[in-house]
Amino acid sequence: MIKAVIVGGTGYTGLELIRLLLGHPRVKLTAITSTTQAGKTVTDFFPSLNGKTDLSFEPFDCKRIADAAGLAFTALPHGASMDVVSQLVEAGLKVIDLSADFRLKNLADYNEWYGEHKSPELLEKAAYGLPELNGEEIKDASLVANPGCYPTSAILPLYPLLKDGVIDSKTVVINSASGLSGAGRVPASGNIFCEANENFKAYKVGEHRHTPEIESVLSAVAGDGFRVTFTPHLLPVNRGILSTITANLNKDISSGDVLSLLSEFYAQSPFVRICEQGTLPAISNVRGSNYCDIGASVDKRTGRLVVVSVIDNLIKGASGQAVQNMNVLYGFAEDEGLSQLPLNL
Amino acid sequence: MIKAVIVGGTGYTGLELIRLLLGHPRVKLTAITSTTQAGKTVTDFFPSLNGKTDLSFEPFDCKRIADAAGLAFTALPHGASMDVVSQLVEAGLKVIDLSADFRLKNLADYNEWYGEHKSPELLEKAAYGLPELNGEEIKDASLVANPGCYPTSAILPLYPLLKDGVIDSKTVVINSASGLSGAGRVPASGNIFCEANENFKAYKVGEHRHTPEIESVLSAVAGDGFRVTFTPHLLPVNRGILSTITANLNKDISSGDVLSLLSEFYAQSPFVRICEQGTLPAISNVRGSNYCDIGASVDKRTGRLVVVSVIDNLIKGASGQAVQNMNVLYGFAEDEGLSQLPLNL
Amino acid sequence: MIKAVIVGGTGYTGLELIRLLLGHPRVKLTAITSTTQAGKTVTDFFPSLNGKTDLSFEPFDCKRIADAAGLAFTALPHGASMDVVSQLVEAGLKVIDLSADFRLKNLADYNEWYGEHKSPELLEKAAYGLPELNGEEIKDASLVANPGCYPTSAILPLYPLLKDGVIDSKTVVINSASGLSGAGRVPASGNIFCEANENFKAYKVGEHRHTPEIESVLSAVAGDGFRVTFTPHLLPVNRGILSTITANLNKDISSGDVLSLLSEFYAQSPFVRICEQGTLPAISNVRGSNYCDIGASVDKRTGRLVVVSVIDNLIKGASGQAVQNMNVLYGFAEDEGLSQLPLNL
Amino acid sequence: MIKAVIVGGTGYTGLELIRLLLGHPRVKLTAITSTTQAGKTVTDFFPSLNGKTDLSFEPFDCKRIADAAGLAFTALPHGASMDVVSQLVEAGLKVIDLSADFRLKNLADYNEWYGEHKSPELLEKAAYGLPELNGEEIKDASLVANPGCYPTSAILPLYPLLKDGVIDSKTVVINSASGLSGAGRVPASGNIFCEANENFKAYKVGEHRHTPEIESVLSAVAGDGFRVTFTPHLLPVNRGILSTITANLNKDISSGDVLSLLSEFYAQSPFVRICEQGTLPAISNVRGSNYCDIGASVDKRTGRLVVVSVIDNLIKGASGQAVQNMNVLYGFAEDEGLSQLPLNL
Repeated sequence: MIKAVIVGGTGYTGLELIRLLLGHPRVKLTAITSTTQAGKTVTDFFPSLNGKTDLSFEPFDCKRIADAAGLAFTALPHGASMDVVSQLVEAGLKVIDLSADFRLKNLADYNEWYGEHKSPELLEKAAYGLPELNGEEIKDASLVANPGCYPTSAILPLYPLLKDGVIDSKTVVINSASGLSGAGRVPASGNIFCEANENFKAYKVGEHRHTPEIESVLSAVAGDGFRVTFTPHLLPVNRGILSTITANLNKDISSGDVLSLLSEFYAQSPFVRICEQGTLPAISNVRGSNYCDIGASVDKRTGRLVVVSVIDNLIKGASGQAVQNMNVLYGFAEDEGLSQLPLNL
Repeated sequence: MIKAVIVGGTGYTGLELIRLLLGHPRVKLTAITSTTQAGKTVTDFFPSLNGKTDLSFEPFDCKRIADAAGLAFTALPHGASMDVVSQLVEAGLKVIDLSADFRLKNLADYNEWYGEHKSPELLEKAAYGLPELNGEEIKDASLVANPGCYPTSAILPLYPLLKDGVIDSKTVVINSASGLSGAGRVPASGNIFCEANENFKAYKVGEHRHTPEIESVLSAVAGDGFRVTFTPHLLPVNRGILSTITANLNKDISSGDVLSLLSEFYAQSPFVRICEQGTLPAISNVRGSNYCDIGASVDKRTGRLVVVSVIDNLIKGASGQAVQNMNVLYGFAEDEGLSQLPLNL
Repeated sequence: MIKAVIVGGTGYTGLELIRLLLGHPRVKLTAITSTTQAGKTVTDFFPSLNGKTDLSFEPFDCKRIADAAGLAFTALPHGASMDVVSQLVEAGLKVIDLSADFRLKNLADYNEWYGEHKSPELLEKAAYGLPELNGEEIKDASLVANPGCYPTSAILPLYPLLKDGVIDSKTVVINSASGLSGAGRVPASGNIFCEANENFKAYKVGEHRHTPEIESVLSAVAGDGFRVTFTPHLLPVNRGILSTITANLNKDISSGDVLSLLSEFYAQSPFVRICEQGTLPAISNVRGSNYCDIGASVDKRTGRLVVVSVIDNLIKGASGQAVQNMNVLYGFAEDEGLSQLPLNL
Repeated sequence: MIKAVIVGGTGYTGLELIRLLLGHPRVKLTAITSTTQAGKTVTDFFPSLNGKTDLSFEPFDCKRIADAAGLAFTALPHGASMDVVSQLVEAGLKVIDLSADFRLKNLADYNEWYGEHKSPELLEKAAYGLPELNGEEIKDASLVANPGCYPTSAILPLYPLLKDGVIDSKTVVINSASGLSGAGRVPASGNIFCEANENFKAYKVGEHRHTPEIESVLSAVAGDGFRVTFTPHLLPVNRGILSTITANLNKDISSGDVLSLLSEFYAQSPFVRICEQGTLPAISNVRGSNYCDIGASVDKRTGRLVVVSVIDNLIKGASGQAVQNMNVLYGFAEDEGLSQLPLNL
């Protein structure tokens, strides 16, 4: 039984972390911090958890946190996270950071896309927390940078395909659609019900901050200077990301062979499921679970491959992946506490 | 480890049963029948379950079922269920029936509201499967009639209030709203997306078949001839039932005292949660869980009590309750395999 | 061609007013004010109106408004409206006020439910703007208090029934559900997408401010001291209100006779449609239109009447009714500029 | 005042045609046919139209139709339409066909994607009904093939860009998402509420029948053999299509210049609106209207252009465009009867 804390527990990723950790057999959640709700009981704020925890939100106090736990999940906005993470690491805690602050290895990239970094020395220490690709590094890390939601959905299908040279890395176009929980729990004109419901739109075309994360991780197999056109969309659902990825094929290959290649690559990964040929994933198939489902179809007429991947953005795209990283970090079974089947509807 | 089968596994309650039983530590699901999908693998039909079961749907064969398991969940339409249940009981299986066929003790009521009953001799054998009220009877039953979804949401709050004489039994008005999964998985003009989405309507006013079920169960505490006005509505969500119940108060009582009374009555019931005074339940608070949350507020100006209850219609309103009944039947902990926290969003 | 202005044009009722007035053949919209968006073009803020107006939002300036128009629609929050309305009336404009500030004739009621009133002298001058019941008074008014959305949906069906003594005024229970646009366009935790989507809940039980409005208007036919239990709910749709109203019948009457009575009462009202016997209204049937559809069903078993009414809360419940009031005020055909058929889906 | 009939009036495009034609000042709707609902009043089937028409559905009888009107809108499934259209044309009516039967000029294409064509002689007679590109031909046609919904959303933005050589025709990738009304009104597992709600998925990847329609119309400006990768998705909303189109730029051009080019091309088209630079269209901005809104953004990092277009699939993507074609055919103002502003929410 390890002890863990959540720093910044009032957002949707915070709620998911609480929910998953309360159900995890190897973890005791000992504290949850919040600047805005300090003093309030967690169940007053999240009545869905009634009867399951007596914790109250408390203000962040590094010393208290270090006394309370050996592991901290930080679920703060980017920019706000780096300072807190730096304190926690210094205090000797292992940290799984759900913000974007430690995902980019290259400081220049961070500066260009996010702004100034206050703890650049930690960048190289941080392991990129995609266990399917990076498990060995995560195991030994003291700081894990939990991947972005869109990058998780894009990197998992693209990595093996680029590695194997199946597709032309110069032609990768990624269209993604995310449910509104990705827009956070802070009221804003962009996430109010009537603006999003019965609506669909692209946003931040060519300038979404997850672009360099996708590119930098995949450049390991696609080569330096790898570039994608990434267009995110806002989908009127609570949960789920679907990415539709198009690229020119480098060789004459069937849909079945593409799927076999993916299946083989992820044979040991409990959370990646490859669809049967002729079927494609839907976000409902993974809702409430830590799965990433991937399908693929060769468009023979144009010589292109169309790959579709789905995740629950709050679970495999955030808090579930963080728990998976914890499992890797502590040597638990990779799916411990994450075995809920998708709710589907 | 007991062995269980599901008879009629392609509807939404079937899917939920499969999902819950696959995650239950004390049960092995050994067969699932379907008339329409026999021969198909379960995961072809329900891709959300990919990787979690190798079962295929098979045609119903009472002998094969009896060999495969000691317990059967029947998830068939009313009218179709009674014959199958009768065979299964005769073959010595314990049966938890999710249809309406054995919920009404009074044969005349069944005949009036549903039509002719082909196995009337089983009516008195069947235990009404609301464990919070009827646990002792369920324990020893060979046939459990799993309650309707609306009745579950109405009976749980009303039973203690009527028993205690808090409200006037002649003034009970129940308005309920159910998500579309309650309308089943068979395509029909009433459940197609564009007809239900962005819509809300009442249906079967004064003639919904759950009315006599509510009345007959509550007549135990409200007296013979107990009658309610029950108006169901169709809500554009996948899951959830909310019942808003109004009745005249028999005495001067505060909201807090009403809530205390409910809390006390359900002190030993792990799945009934009573809201704090000043708060009311929302269907999101129980989504994906077996909880029934209940809130209450006295309207002093009119001398009426307003009670609001919520359940997930597929779980506490159907398959979760069936699993809870199984737990009671076999002496497992009442919440075994049902401890998932609500998904909330 | 009359000239009209909108004071407070950035909310949803503001948007609907702009949309309806731009399409009205007898009105020229000459100015739209906004405190927060002053200086911005209307189409920058509402891109759906692109190409249809060159107006920019401007700060409120009573003199400028008086020069620009003879009629003002005020679409401000209650409390903020009374002061502006008072200035506009003094400046000689006719005013149709969409706030709650002038709906209650009784000052004590206003003080109790809303707080202090700064322009009590205008209360008796204001005509309650429900043209179906109050057309004669509206015709001659200089100030029209546009009704609340819930009251519109409740009063239209109840007025004739109470007037005729069909139902027992001591037993009226109103359950209403409103789409999220009723919660306004200002971001708040209550109207963010993931909190409202796939959710349903009651709110302000026994204390919603529309209660005294319903009671005071209906006391004209139900007698002084008329009281209702009114329970509003939040519905995960953009538009629409459905009210389910239950009351004991005073006499033995059939559903058909109730519907005939309603049909006769509203024979001259172009926007009230009475459903055929055996059918009930759905909010989709009136979406995007100024209709109020009403259905009714006698529950013989309990001696109660169940009445269901639906409106589009932004149109018949707000801006459409305001335009209808304008038509009455200026002697235009009552449905001029309001003849759009419901969008249905 | 011309007389028109609708052949096949019970689907969603049928309902929209009825709604639009009942509100059109120059048309009298004289008959509506239906095989399944013949004999039923239109308002019994579509209660949203209550009070606005006395018509009943009638069986198709070519002679009766020819007597009743000079213009027929055929809203039948592809395959079923060609025979009826052939009869109507022979009987001397002008026909606007909303099916796919006459959209492809090339018989071989039809045979490959749809199957055998029974009236191939009409293919060359039919004018492709996209008035923005083909107005002159439509004017003189006796048969207008109303475009598909996806093709309308893809062709309008792509035509000027390909004509002007702005983009490389070999790199066009189209991702589209459509609301569920595109799946029709006939109950099927694909359009039931719980399967589509809170879901998102791609379908018919590489094989959707709108692909050859897009390619054949655009080959006029992109050259023979023009090919696109077209991936449609199912969006959990009632109405709306959004297409996100990516292509390599042929030249160094700014977003502003792309938008200017589009604005100029559509300067005389009342229903095409080009977004301001830095803004992108959302389907809510055109809901309930005949508009097509188009935005564009150059992704400098990759040398690609991202274009986004939106339409209401039932209006500009079907029935509104059919009415627009009628206006062109009869020399009415192009926007007569189509001036409703978008409902937005």
